[in-house]
Amino acid sequence: MGFWKSLFSTSETTTAAKPPGIDGMASPGVVVGNSRIFFSTDREIDLYELEELCDAVGWSRRPLRKVKKAIQYSFLVVSMWEQRGTQRRLIGFSRATSDHAFNATIWDVVVHPDFQSKGLGKALMRQMIKRLRNEDISNITLFADPHVIDFYRGLGFMPDPEGIKGMFWYPD
Amino acid sequence: MGFWKSLFSTSETTTAAKPPGIDGMASPGVVVGNSRIFFSTDREIDLYELEELCDAVGWSRRPLRKVKKAIQYSFLVVSMWEQRGTQRRLIGFSRATSDHAFNATIWDVVVHPDFQSKGLGKALMRQMIKRLRNEDISNITLFADPHVIDFYRGLGFMPDPEGIKGMFWYPD
Repeated sequence: MGFWKSLFSTSETTTAAKPPGIDGMASPGVVVGNSRIFFSTDREIDLYELEELCDAVGWSRRPLRKVKKAIQYSFLVVSMWEQRGTQRRLIGFSRATSDHAFNATIWDVVVHPDFQSKGLGKALMRQMIKRLRNEDISNITLFADPHVIDFYRGLGFMPDPEGIKGMFWYPD
Repeated sequence: MGFWKSLFSTSETTTAAKPPGIDGMASPGVVVGNSRIFFSTDREIDLYELEELCDAVGWSRRPLRKVKKAIQYSFLVVSMWEQRGTQRRLIGFSRATSDHAFNATIWDVVVHPDFQSKGLGKALMRQMIKRLRNEDISNITLFADPHVIDFYRGLGFMPDPEGIKGMFWYPD
């Protein structure tokens, strides 16, 4: 994991800071054997490929029409790709909603099981945080399932700071 | 409080459902003595009047340039007004960010101290929930300070459902 981490740290420092949402933007990536891992903020993602990724981690399927709209209206979308030769494979995804000024909330963080436990989830989240910070967003939030609370804690996220509670509305 | 509540229930059922973000939209409102309380989704709010409202509840001041941007990029803005004759006074405010498809997060809920404990905060939140639901947003979330957790619970919000934790990122 240290190996991946150091590679991604290098990758991150050499990635130019650009505003989120610019289509086609990709980080320089890192070469690992004959494959290269890179990040992109391009929103033109094949929705079937994204669905396949979400299937792989067992998420419930969602209408693609709504997924498309959610991507369109997210403030930031970061996808993670493995490239082997001319073949590109979507291996991670995350997005954030925002008021473009103060707050952002990160949703739908997913890393393909074949690529988990390699530090890539952290690398993906660091891309999200870096880009949100570059846009002067001071309040980065998320809602974490119990089994990933420690993962996010390791990235600097704090649960219930000063007693602030995440709450979800349920219909009567 | 029951009086206000019943008035607002009536108001809510007679308010036509329209998409969020339409400027100039206002609920019919209710007449109380010689004043009328109504809601609006108009984003053309006097930022100094909004700042005065936030000052009244002791919030830290924020750059108006950023407040303006946050209002512009919120999915939904609901303001609450008292009208006496031709005089309009801003007495409440709330807004929500969203991906326009699945999730919304409610921010900056404020009711002027002179108008608190009259059921108006609840009425304001019900306007938010109703409009988000009308837009087919299934996941309505917020981050509640400790002293308002019970207020939101009374509106149907649940803290940490299934152990899901609200988390905030802090720089190293």
